[in-house]
Amino acid sequence: MKQSELITAALKGEATLVVKNARVVNVFTNEILEGDVALSEDTIIGVGKGFAAREEIDAGGAYLCPGFIDAHVHIESSMVIPDSFSRVIMPHGTTTIIADPHEIANVCGVAGVRAIYKLSDDLPLRVMFMMPSCVPATPFENSGAAITAEDMEQFMRKSRMLGLGEVMDAVSTINCSKDMMDKLRLFDGRPIDGHAPLLSGRALNAYRVAGPSTDHECSNYDEVVEKLRTGMRILLRVGSAANGMEELITEIVKHGLPTDNMMFCTDDKHIENIRREGHINCIARMAVKCGIDPVQAVKMASYNAARAYGLRNIGAIAPGYKGDMVLFEDLKDFKVLKVFTRFGKPYDGKPTPMPIIPQAVYTSMNMAPISKDGLKLPAKDIMPVICQIEGQLVTERRDLPVCRDAEGNFVSGNGLNKLAVIERHHALGNIGLGIVQGFNIHGGAIASTVAHDSHNLVMVGDNDDDMLLAAESLRECGGGFCVVSHGIVLARLPLPIAGLMTDAPVDSVLEIQRALLDAAAYIGVDKKSDPLVALSFLALPVIPAIRLTDKGLFDSASFKFIEV
Amino acid sequence: MKQSELITAALKGEATLVVKNARVVNVFTNEILEGDVALSEDTIIGVGKGFAAREEIDAGGAYLCPGFIDAHVHIESSMVIPDSFSRVIMPHGTTTIIADPHEIANVCGVAGVRAIYKLSDDLPLRVMFMMPSCVPATPFENSGAAITAEDMEQFMRKSRMLGLGEVMDAVSTINCSKDMMDKLRLFDGRPIDGHAPLLSGRALNAYRVAGPSTDHECSNYDEVVEKLRTGMRILLRVGSAANGMEELITEIVKHGLPTDNMMFCTDDKHIENIRREGHINCIARMAVKCGIDPVQAVKMASYNAARAYGLRNIGAIAPGYKGDMVLFEDLKDFKVLKVFTRFGKPYDGKPTPMPIIPQAVYTSMNMAPISKDGLKLPAKDIMPVICQIEGQLVTERRDLPVCRDAEGNFVSGNGLNKLAVIERHHALGNIGLGIVQGFNIHGGAIASTVAHDSHNLVMVGDNDDDMLLAAESLRECGGGFCVVSHGIVLARLPLPIAGLMTDAPVDSVLEIQRALLDAAAYIGVDKKSDPLVALSFLALPVIPAIRLTDKGLFDSASFKFIEV
Repeated sequence: MKQSELITAALKGEATLVVKNARVVNVFTNEILEGDVALSEDTIIGVGKGFAAREEIDAGGAYLCPGFIDAHVHIESSMVIPDSFSRVIMPHGTTTIIADPHEIANVCGVAGVRAIYKLSDDLPLRVMFMMPSCVPATPFENSGAAITAEDMEQFMRKSRMLGLGEVMDAVSTINCSKDMMDKLRLFDGRPIDGHAPLLSGRALNAYRVAGPSTDHECSNYDEVVEKLRTGMRILLRVGSAANGMEELITEIVKHGLPTDNMMFCTDDKHIENIRREGHINCIARMAVKCGIDPVQAVKMASYNAARAYGLRNIGAIAPGYKGDMVLFEDLKDFKVLKVFTRFGKPYDGKPTPMPIIPQAVYTSMNMAPISKDGLKLPAKDIMPVICQIEGQLVTERRDLPVCRDAEGNFVSGNGLNKLAVIERHHALGNIGLGIVQGFNIHGGAIASTVAHDSHNLVMVGDNDDDMLLAAESLRECGGGFCVVSHGIVLARLPLPIAGLMTDAPVDSVLEIQRALLDAAAYIGVDKKSDPLVALSFLALPVIPAIRLTDKGLFDSASFKFIEV
Repeated sequence: MKQSELITAALKGEATLVVKNARVVNVFTNEILEGDVALSEDTIIGVGKGFAAREEIDAGGAYLCPGFIDAHVHIESSMVIPDSFSRVIMPHGTTTIIADPHEIANVCGVAGVRAIYKLSDDLPLRVMFMMPSCVPATPFENSGAAITAEDMEQFMRKSRMLGLGEVMDAVSTINCSKDMMDKLRLFDGRPIDGHAPLLSGRALNAYRVAGPSTDHECSNYDEVVEKLRTGMRILLRVGSAANGMEELITEIVKHGLPTDNMMFCTDDKHIENIRREGHINCIARMAVKCGIDPVQAVKMASYNAARAYGLRNIGAIAPGYKGDMVLFEDLKDFKVLKVFTRFGKPYDGKPTPMPIIPQAVYTSMNMAPISKDGLKLPAKDIMPVICQIEGQLVTERRDLPVCRDAEGNFVSGNGLNKLAVIERHHALGNIGLGIVQGFNIHGGAIASTVAHDSHNLVMVGDNDDDMLLAAESLRECGGGFCVVSHGIVLARLPLPIAGLMTDAPVDSVLEIQRALLDAAAYIGVDKKSDPLVALSFLALPVIPAIRLTDKGLFDSASFKFIEV
């Protein structure tokens, strides 16, 4: 619709759709105003009374809010393509996501970014992007591709590319590596996402001077306060893997910290959890439960994120804003009654026509041949062990006595298993080996090609035969997850798109996922934990304290490999 | 300084200047934190303790705030060039202004905009610009120039040109005139200033859909609420001519209206008043007196404006932000102790080297010959009269009995004087004549080439001889102000730059201004009023209710000329 037609429609009060009898949350005055909202096609042309409408929807006194925004999410982590993902989250009132295609970029490079950008083109979900900044994430691992500042230039004028994605490599940033400076310079003046768990003091100052202006890694209140004081926008994350957010929000309320520069994100959240608990509305619910004022919670879920990322026309219900809205039963449980898409239309949940997936993202699985010898880990009496902490992504290093075979190689025992990371992009033959506590596997192995951030093949097991079979099983199907036991593949989820995603229906993905978890439990993994998520973060060298990459065991605090 | 050097300085805590022992206002957490602020050249690299410094300044426990921002100002209205203006306002803590060179643009067109942009290039004051949107302001008057969307394109990539200046012609906007649509389209996605006194309901909706997103014309609380609800940023203006702001702020406090989208501006404020009362700090003082929380007042005076106009690196004291700061004795009276410029240096008040003023702005005074006959105003018994309202810019129309001479022409009497607006740009010979109440002139005339917005020559008097002399006196000096009485020029302020400004020292300008006011009082003008300001707004057809342009008497409510 032409701008002049919209202006005229607003002047005459002639709407294509009027949502009547709503309690409209006004993010500018913090009021809840009873009235009607008039739209002309995709644009709000007025809030109040007395509009003429071609079509009317009665809100029945329910609460109409700006569509909710996930300020930071990796679509790839849902394991389904953008269309499927949108159909999982939109029923929960999320109408906009700010996606960082960091995962597919680490596997397929710019071709991966182009693919996911294209696959999200025509969705009713508003999919905005941040350019992955750290591909590879660190120099301490082999990824599928590298993206330089020069590679990024082709994306600078794309309308949905907002800024630079999470700058995870804080060390390169504050030490002014040329590559990082080139990227930061390219995005100067645009939003730049940070990712700096526990960064503090002068290092944080230097990081801020360099450019990153958001953070979604805060794990305690003091960290929130220190980062907020430096002008960072705080993204409160409630995904699948990270926890502790209720305590954090309760502290924020207790101290009366202003929430104007806070917003919500999921980062990574399982589609099963989204279906069960909700999405951004689930975080809003938690926030209100922790004592955040309901209107402020709505703003954190919408307006604050829109402002942070320079999205001028969304995040509010006011003339000139786009029609992304969500109708909630109340502002406590945030149960969704109706969702209005970026087209200003009621969301109908229908899939978009079959998307064409570029061939380039189907050929990512490229491992060198693997032998049992390659999985042998010579060990001393005492070895550094990656210890998982329940319900958290961070790990801790402990030096523990280990069991060894006659040749002096590590064997599982005392609750310790073998961990392996195998390079899978360019058949380099790299294998990193280590010891992990927390899986308790007996008689089997679990493998995954979802392994942040380089997405090599990561696997854990108590015997090399099953580990070898797990790796070969994933090679065969182009990547994914599998659980094997005593020479049998118990369950397998093929993820042929970059070894990260599938275009299979969400229901079948969830069904296989449940089978994977059952199989994992069968080989001894605690039912309360999710070994698939745990496994996929164990190769991520930017999160403290100890990790394993295809290049070896890594100390994420000192950013150095650990010599054994 | 290179970015990498700044990052390194932040990391090492090595500052060029440290402001020690300050109470630092943090606009993100709303805290006041005791500590030191470290700068490396023009950039803040840390807030806290333990920095190494080449130079130290002891703040002695005073309050360090982000430099204050005037969110909307016409430099030309100060009657002095930008360098002089900056030396008037900076001692009061204003370190950034968002200038709309609307006045000089209406006289000299794009050449005027270029001139004032260039004249503000190297000042310690940060001078940002909005592109004048309405040149001429309306089709109801003859201005010196017109600026089309095409003319504007040359300014789009200038780093200090932020957006589109106040869109005063609301009628053309909501009726989608092609010219206005072209301009709005050109600035789509950038800040667009509104100017829409009393605009409401569907007309306001249409105006918002068209693009303007700020307003500095609110004169009552209901107007503030309605505009704020539509997402407009509210600029609370305390200048020389408009009043009533204390009541308005008191209402805002009483109703608990959030101030995040509110900021301060002066629009037009006499340099004499600035010297006496202060500038943006004067508004902050008033706001706190009216009950606004001091930290919120500081934010309204700095951070909120920076956010509204997309100025990412100012408006806060945090790493990566520019060194614009002001040290106040307290957050009540806002008495300035020290100002730090955009260069991160203590402000020293020195003038910049003699600026080169382009010749193009010196040749604006171009009136056709004027005769006494041309000033004759044939009148009926009852005539429409422009009645001034004490302390306000708005006027009201009254139809009053008038005195006439033998030929039936209007003569002064009963407190009514003759008003004339003479086209002065292209010697068109247009003269608009009308009757005005409120000056009470006896035996003299006052003339001005400062006459918003087209800046024709406007004059008021009780006899045609003195009016003629006043006009000729201003023709001679290239424009300005003068007061004449009984054939003698009592006082004259030459403003040879566009008939609006002078590069004469501020002190001499103020001295002559006082002489003008004394002279005005001598011919009968009430000492309490400022006839120079009053006169210069009487030709402004966008402010209610009745005005005079060079084309005739004008009804600003119906936007139609008044037939007598």
